[in-house]
Amino acid sequence: MQLFYNSDLSATSKEITFNKEESRHIVRVLRKKEGGILHITNGKGALFFAEIIIGNDKKCVAKIIKTEEKSRTRDYYLHVAIAPTKNNDRLEWFLEKATEIGVDEITPIICKNSERKTVKIERLERIIQSAMKQSLQFTLPKLNEPIKFTDFLNNDFSEEIFIAHCEENNKKKFLKNCATPKSKYTILIGPEGDFSTNEIQLSLKKNFIPISLGENRLRTETAGLNVVQSIAYLHQ
Amino acid sequence: MQLFYNSDLSATSKEITFNKEESRHIVRVLRKKEGGILHITNGKGALFFAEIIIGNDKKCVAKIIKTEEKSRTRDYYLHVAIAPTKNNDRLEWFLEKATEIGVDEITPIICKNSERKTVKIERLERIIQSAMKQSLQFTLPKLNEPIKFTDFLNNDFSEEIFIAHCEENNKKKFLKNCATPKSKYTILIGPEGDFSTNEIQLSLKKNFIPISLGENRLRTETAGLNVVQSIAYLHQ
Repeated sequence: MQLFYNSDLSATSKEITFNKEESRHIVRVLRKKEGGILHITNGKGALFFAEIIIGNDKKCVAKIIKTEEKSRTRDYYLHVAIAPTKNNDRLEWFLEKATEIGVDEITPIICKNSERKTVKIERLERIIQSAMKQSLQFTLPKLNEPIKFTDFLNNDFSEEIFIAHCEENNKKKFLKNCATPKSKYTILIGPEGDFSTNEIQLSLKKNFIPISLGENRLRTETAGLNVVQSIAYLHQ
Repeated sequence: MQLFYNSDLSATSKEITFNKEESRHIVRVLRKKEGGILHITNGKGALFFAEIIIGNDKKCVAKIIKTEEKSRTRDYYLHVAIAPTKNNDRLEWFLEKATEIGVDEITPIICKNSERKTVKIERLERIIQSAMKQSLQFTLPKLNEPIKFTDFLNNDFSEEIFIAHCEENNKKKFLKNCATPKSKYTILIGPEGDFSTNEIQLSLKKNFIPISLGENRLRTETAGLNVVQSIAYLHQ
């Protein structure tokens, strides 16, 4: 099944007009003709079945014939606040994989040791959209604007909150031993060079729980995906 | 800590001569001088401490002053047999991440639906080596030559064996519900387009246990890393 994405679709939508790129893909690559059925999600939990009424490879139009509300398959909410990696590809890779496995919200955090302090939000949005479509999900993870780590900590956190820092700390537990199933989580992942000691202290003052990701030294994006998969595993 | 790799080092080694690239890195980038200490692993569980005796940026030589045998931190053995992805980057990405998280052996399997039937072993070896160094591990995962899937199935499997295929099967369990901790595992990951029905039948005849990786449709390399992290999680 090939899933399309259009955030404008709602319960009242009657038809959908695809952009040039999508129209070309539908007509030229998928070889869809008038009468053919397409699947589209609005990224807000709805799956639309639409029948092609104009099979034009520059402007394909389809009539919505059926709508399904897809209940979330996950019974938890996961927010990962992660420092952008020096190499863009690594953050983009994290976003693709985290979306495939299951994440609800992502915030790029700019830390003291961050070598990269900006991200291309539109580009990252597209990567998340295509991973959602590819993995056949119907809810688009929320990508927030980058924020300074110290400002991020000023939020009120009512959910379960964890920090994956690399400083020695024999109190560190594995997520599976300190996270409650079916809950809401925010997990902090630091930059190459880790959170600064001051940043760690600030997060501990806000009652973030330090977690261990195992013996090996993990890259930022690997650590990020590691917590996403650990929370998913906790709910299997 | 910066870890170097030299497979020739053994308990009897007295000194090590670095190649041009490494010598340049040590002297120019790390700014190491004669008397400076370097850490080297042979990828067979040993960590060598060596003192630079010739700080030449074309041919750096160091004298081994101490050797530590590093016992494996993992109490299981994981072999992942995975179909090379159509896009090389995705297989390489899997190798890097699987090595970071923890894998012991990898076999590229060529399946009926494999679009890629060859891999560049030397290049993949280098990726595994650099991930081992980066994650501060001292045992190099074993990378086997590619093999036809049907030939691979002719092996005798005494370990716990699992297959992650995408065909509907309500008997599928999650790894955490069917894998025994502290054991030896071989897990099969199929190509884009999945294993063929015939390949699945053959593996079931060999008593491979079908496993579920969750609700979402995962890319080949994501599925591969997913099982590596699930087995790691099982041992946390």
